[in-house]
Amino acid sequence: MKSEEQFLELIDTYFPRDHEFLKLGRGDDCAVLAGGKEYCVSSDLFIEDIHFRRSYFTAEDIGYKALAVNLSDIAGMGAKPVAFTMDLIAPADLDDEFWNGFFKSMSMMARQNDIALAGGDLSRGDKLAISITIFGVAGGSGEFLTRGGCNPGDTLFTVGDLGLARAGFHTLEALGDKALEAFPAAVRAHLRPKPKVIIGTLLNAAGVKGLMDVSDGLARDLPRFLGTELGAAIALPAEKLNGNVLAFALGVGTDPVETAILGGEDYALLGAASPEIMDKVTSVPGVEIIGTVTDTPGLMVNGAPFTAEGFDHFDK
Amino acid sequence: MKSEEQFLELIDTYFPRDHEFLKLGRGDDCAVLAGGKEYCVSSDLFIEDIHFRRSYFTAEDIGYKALAVNLSDIAGMGAKPVAFTMDLIAPADLDDEFWNGFFKSMSMMARQNDIALAGGDLSRGDKLAISITIFGVAGGSGEFLTRGGCNPGDTLFTVGDLGLARAGFHTLEALGDKALEAFPAAVRAHLRPKPKVIIGTLLNAAGVKGLMDVSDGLARDLPRFLGTELGAAIALPAEKLNGNVLAFALGVGTDPVETAILGGEDYALLGAASPEIMDKVTSVPGVEIIGTVTDTPGLMVNGAPFTAEGFDHFDK
Repeated sequence: MKSEEQFLELIDTYFPRDHEFLKLGRGDDCAVLAGGKEYCVSSDLFIEDIHFRRSYFTAEDIGYKALAVNLSDIAGMGAKPVAFTMDLIAPADLDDEFWNGFFKSMSMMARQNDIALAGGDLSRGDKLAISITIFGVAGGSGEFLTRGGCNPGDTLFTVGDLGLARAGFHTLEALGDKALEAFPAAVRAHLRPKPKVIIGTLLNAAGVKGLMDVSDGLARDLPRFLGTELGAAIALPAEKLNGNVLAFALGVGTDPVETAILGGEDYALLGAASPEIMDKVTSVPGVEIIGTVTDTPGLMVNGAPFTAEGFDHFDK
Repeated sequence: MKSEEQFLELIDTYFPRDHEFLKLGRGDDCAVLAGGKEYCVSSDLFIEDIHFRRSYFTAEDIGYKALAVNLSDIAGMGAKPVAFTMDLIAPADLDDEFWNGFFKSMSMMARQNDIALAGGDLSRGDKLAISITIFGVAGGSGEFLTRGGCNPGDTLFTVGDLGLARAGFHTLEALGDKALEAFPAAVRAHLRPKPKVIIGTLLNAAGVKGLMDVSDGLARDLPRFLGTELGAAIALPAEKLNGNVLAFALGVGTDPVETAILGGEDYALLGAASPEIMDKVTSVPGVEIIGTVTDTPGLMVNGAPFTAEGFDHFDK
């Protein structure tokens, strides 16, 4: 891919410019989002050797996951995604085959979620980096689901495996391509996390008020969810964890429950709801009750205080 | 700056979370833009050793320009900026003094333009890179000013110096810190380009329909503005150029008019209007008439065809 023009032509072959939520598509100084709606907005980075490795991510995996991690933020608002912008730092050594795989996979994800690429920027750089800003509109109830607003006694629930992507990450780092055979579910969770967009809108419709995307692990994200005045008592028996998490923890000699709670890149949903509406909430596919909101700060797991720290991208 | 939390705390000291156009500020999975408006959206990258050098940009210059180049896209729509998100790739060697300078300068720019920081992401990386997505609402007429829609015979005009930032860039590359003394206007144009946001809204109110931000040089951006079926006849006598452009061209032995037309990072505005409203248009400060839209493609400059090519970030 030699010039900016060639790059933009390739993007045009994969991403249509028109969308019902775009009054003006990409190609001008700005795109224009259709009026009359409240839009939710989130930005995420996806960077080579920080968030992914080119040694075990295919071009298709990278294109998929760059957009998936952003969709997960929209899911955490119980919202419906409509469009995104993408700033791309592209190393010169990536060939046309790479870019075709990357855009094909990303555009498939965009089509499945009915979202438009509204604009962006391109630049050269040593490492591949993707910065996506994504836009959504309120789903279900017409409201966005924020963090906080929990009351003591509310039921806490998650959707999605905890610790599985972390197991996948460490396994891929240690074993490379061979990891897939030994830990298929964990590897898939790291390479191709499934954003829970439809689940988020269903939880919104079910009357859930507090919801968030768990991307830094439950240990870090649960306190952010609860705020400074509340705590949580979690019951997470090891037998409820994915078999790959158990096998990974056994292999490296850690506690599987701690592995799950520390997590990182789970892209699971964490929510709270009053016990009265839990019948409706548990009818949403994938919902697992994990515990209860308590009236004192701190995290209790299986009856004991949990003190290990979660995932900080800055430490990596 | 050790942890992500410390970084976020520093950002909180410089950027308030509340804004009339934010229903929900940063700190959740998404921010929420207030409803009822059409929002225009643009994304730009600003990357070390591609768009700037740490050797001659201060922390304050970098923070300023990263936001300024995005504001310029809003100006090109004749719009009013309201908020932005920022994804930041931060090398570990930058100290607290750097970040204080960076955020202080950026937040001053944000305050002057009354815009809120609505969210973003942070990551480590080898080179400093800033990816900003900016949002605006329609100014002046209530419409956004797009490219195209010109008619043959329309008057073409610009606001801002052409070629001056290019002269500044080359001078800084060659002379480093010493460039400021010899080419002060050119150096300032490269380090601290002035986004023409208020001018853009005034042009919108004056009835201009076609406007764009000139960031890749007139030679590249004028054909984008005109579309494939029209051309332009430009009259740009050397004596109308900034003295620093003349001195630079003389020094390196190039044609000053060519230097101005090739430009790059001018962050000037380029517009077209029918001759009937030019009285109103020229009453807007800084407007310079540069020529006329013609009915055949191609660019004529001072009576001769112009064929040199403008600026491609991918070639850099």
